[in-house]
Amino acid sequence: MQMYDLIRKKRDGGILSNAEISWFVRGYTAGDIPDYQASALCMAIWYRGMTAAETTALTLAMRDSGDILHLNGVQGLRVDKHSTGGVGDKTSLVIAPVVAALGLKVAKMSGRGLGHTGGTVDKLEAIRGFRTDLTTAEFETIVNRTGLAIVGQSAELAPADKRLYALRDVTATVDSLPLIASSIMSKKLAANDDCILLDVKTGSGAFMKTEEDSRALAEAMVEIGCRAGKRVRALITDMDRPLGCAIGNALEVIEAIEVLRGGGPADLVQICEALAVHMLMLSDYGAEAACAEAVRRVIADGSALDAFARMVEAQGGDPDWIYHPEHFPTALFVREVRAPRNGYITHVDCEGYGAAALLLGAGRSRMEDVIDPAAGVVLAKRTGDFVRAGEVIATLHTSDELRLDAAEARLLGATEWGEEPPVERPLIVGVVE
Amino acid sequence: MQMYDLIRKKRDGGILSNAEISWFVRGYTAGDIPDYQASALCMAIWYRGMTAAETTALTLAMRDSGDILHLNGVQGLRVDKHSTGGVGDKTSLVIAPVVAALGLKVAKMSGRGLGHTGGTVDKLEAIRGFRTDLTTAEFETIVNRTGLAIVGQSAELAPADKRLYALRDVTATVDSLPLIASSIMSKKLAANDDCILLDVKTGSGAFMKTEEDSRALAEAMVEIGCRAGKRVRALITDMDRPLGCAIGNALEVIEAIEVLRGGGPADLVQICEALAVHMLMLSDYGAEAACAEAVRRVIADGSALDAFARMVEAQGGDPDWIYHPEHFPTALFVREVRAPRNGYITHVDCEGYGAAALLLGAGRSRMEDVIDPAAGVVLAKRTGDFVRAGEVIATLHTSDELRLDAAEARLLGATEWGEEPPVERPLIVGVVE
Repeated sequence: MQMYDLIRKKRDGGILSNAEISWFVRGYTAGDIPDYQASALCMAIWYRGMTAAETTALTLAMRDSGDILHLNGVQGLRVDKHSTGGVGDKTSLVIAPVVAALGLKVAKMSGRGLGHTGGTVDKLEAIRGFRTDLTTAEFETIVNRTGLAIVGQSAELAPADKRLYALRDVTATVDSLPLIASSIMSKKLAANDDCILLDVKTGSGAFMKTEEDSRALAEAMVEIGCRAGKRVRALITDMDRPLGCAIGNALEVIEAIEVLRGGGPADLVQICEALAVHMLMLSDYGAEAACAEAVRRVIADGSALDAFARMVEAQGGDPDWIYHPEHFPTALFVREVRAPRNGYITHVDCEGYGAAALLLGAGRSRMEDVIDPAAGVVLAKRTGDFVRAGEVIATLHTSDELRLDAAEARLLGATEWGEEPPVERPLIVGVVE
Repeated sequence: MQMYDLIRKKRDGGILSNAEISWFVRGYTAGDIPDYQASALCMAIWYRGMTAAETTALTLAMRDSGDILHLNGVQGLRVDKHSTGGVGDKTSLVIAPVVAALGLKVAKMSGRGLGHTGGTVDKLEAIRGFRTDLTTAEFETIVNRTGLAIVGQSAELAPADKRLYALRDVTATVDSLPLIASSIMSKKLAANDDCILLDVKTGSGAFMKTEEDSRALAEAMVEIGCRAGKRVRALITDMDRPLGCAIGNALEVIEAIEVLRGGGPADLVQICEALAVHMLMLSDYGAEAACAEAVRRVIADGSALDAFARMVEAQGGDPDWIYHPEHFPTALFVREVRAPRNGYITHVDCEGYGAAALLLGAGRSRMEDVIDPAAGVVLAKRTGDFVRAGEVIATLHTSDELRLDAAEARLLGATEWGEEPPVERPLIVGVVE
């Protein structure tokens, strides 16, 4: 087989065979196929696309390029939820305890944040002592005991994807649907859960801006997952504004705890309930109404919060923080951002809000940056709210006073105003299964 | 400037600025821009094309990446002819002496052959003692004295093109019109002749198979040349069958000498006359009829042959070989290939015929292969001829008897037969200026 022939075939609109695709992924991972041929192929795929069969073959080949997480020691169905990324998305911190309290097993391997979106592992590390570097044996033991555990990516899952993604990132070939779908699904399939719920974000703050693109990505990923023998479903959810009010690590954990206590912002509650319900349905827990009732019950009776506290304790944190979030570190400097005018907030640029939190110390520009767990933004007013000039619309939290001006300017610059309220967008846009 | 932004711009159908293109070529030549980004850009160009302004900017940037041949010591207009490559194309050996005999200056830098097409330098080296590694001073002196000299590429002309071409060759991005046109023209403009006649081949044996593609390439190259301030014209000529009867180095020089003596195959004579006439017209020698008359005159009176002999002598060869071609080495083994059936030769695959000559030792599969000057094929019957079974259609020449069977099979396999003569194709398809 010659890489030249594969590039040419795809360039001319041909369909690559399973054998060709797995040969490419093996050769590229081994370093036998140079980057310059792989990037030419990616660009040809950018133009020509891939069939469902090709995309699945690429996904499986990348999955098979590294470790596959077997976790045979875990008893019961393993279920996971994966979000395509958004600002203020702390849903994992809510729904993992909820479904664990209902008997599902959540053995979650999660990433760190980069750029304007945060990572679940960073959020949990705002809890002092919380360890995300468990051994496989510890991981399994905790999952069996508490129903859930969340760790950083230790095993080398889908190294071919890692290498190819780094190449795509510098060759303008990231935004290709089959390449995005196979990249996400290769890691998910290597993590090897039985049930995978995908939360595909849509809107200006999402990777996919339009419902059409988000649906296409959801369909591609569900198709791959089903072809790979998994139970997979996708929710398409709104990311035209940040999810909930908190952006920043400790701030988001605290907001998640509020939801687990039966409070929290309505949009966050609605999305968390929908995600938890679909995770339960995927796991054959019951019909939709029964699942919804169960979700509300474990929140109302505190058993979901207990599940969260048990996991925190098992992973080295102090469970008392979960019941008393006032233990979380607070920022040295807090500034109120006030509305410059009367009017409706008609739209906020999620990236701008995420960038403001990043400026305050809540995120990383580069992988080696250190996060300030207390830093971030809490929104007091949100898209659709009518605000009078001088009213507080957000508070900025940071340990570095010098960052406040830039963050305030970024936040205000990302806020749009008008005389009329914006058209309301549905939170749950669709289900793909 | 970021290479990522250039790739993305072109990927999305944008037009690169002169500054962006020259920045890319400089960075790529210097090794600052990696191959994997250059190949992604080439693939995007493959899909999106380039405007005439972009193509010219790319050409000039590649021209300026290395030496430019000034040859200020040459007196008079320097004129060159460049062919896009074909089988049996020995026209340079005829027309350079012809126009030199009429006072033009031909300071030709020529390549070696690779694959199924030969190179002018290889052909001339079939003349014992002929040196193609002249210094610039020798080169200028000989051109001034004899009107012509032909050397191998010593100066580093357009190294950016060399590097980019090698990359395109392994990433399926060779057959892109702006990339082909800029590649050819960057070297031609670095060779820096005043007048450039392009011989763009068309047909099954040419790089461009259709008249439409050949015309588009001719137009793109003429446009670049004019924008670069040169006098440029292109002939589109047929390469649906080998040019003339001889394929192989000494065999082709001998056939060129036949033409210079007033003989030779009619197709070769017609193409040589047309090319010489257009070189003269480009150089303001006179009107078409006057140029044609002059060309016939210097062939009839022997002065073109004398010019060839003078160049051979000046470059270290024995001029007596030119007047007595029986001096050329002959092959140890000659085999006659006979027609397997009655019928018309309806078509021959030029690549197949070139490959047969290559098998006999007349060419190189790899750059380091050594050529057998006496090896090759001489056609006795050609496309359109009616042949009876058992008649000789070609003779194979080689110093390695073991190669004869494979070459004969290749040649016969590349010959198509029919009951009806094929439709005749014009030799001169068009002129682009």
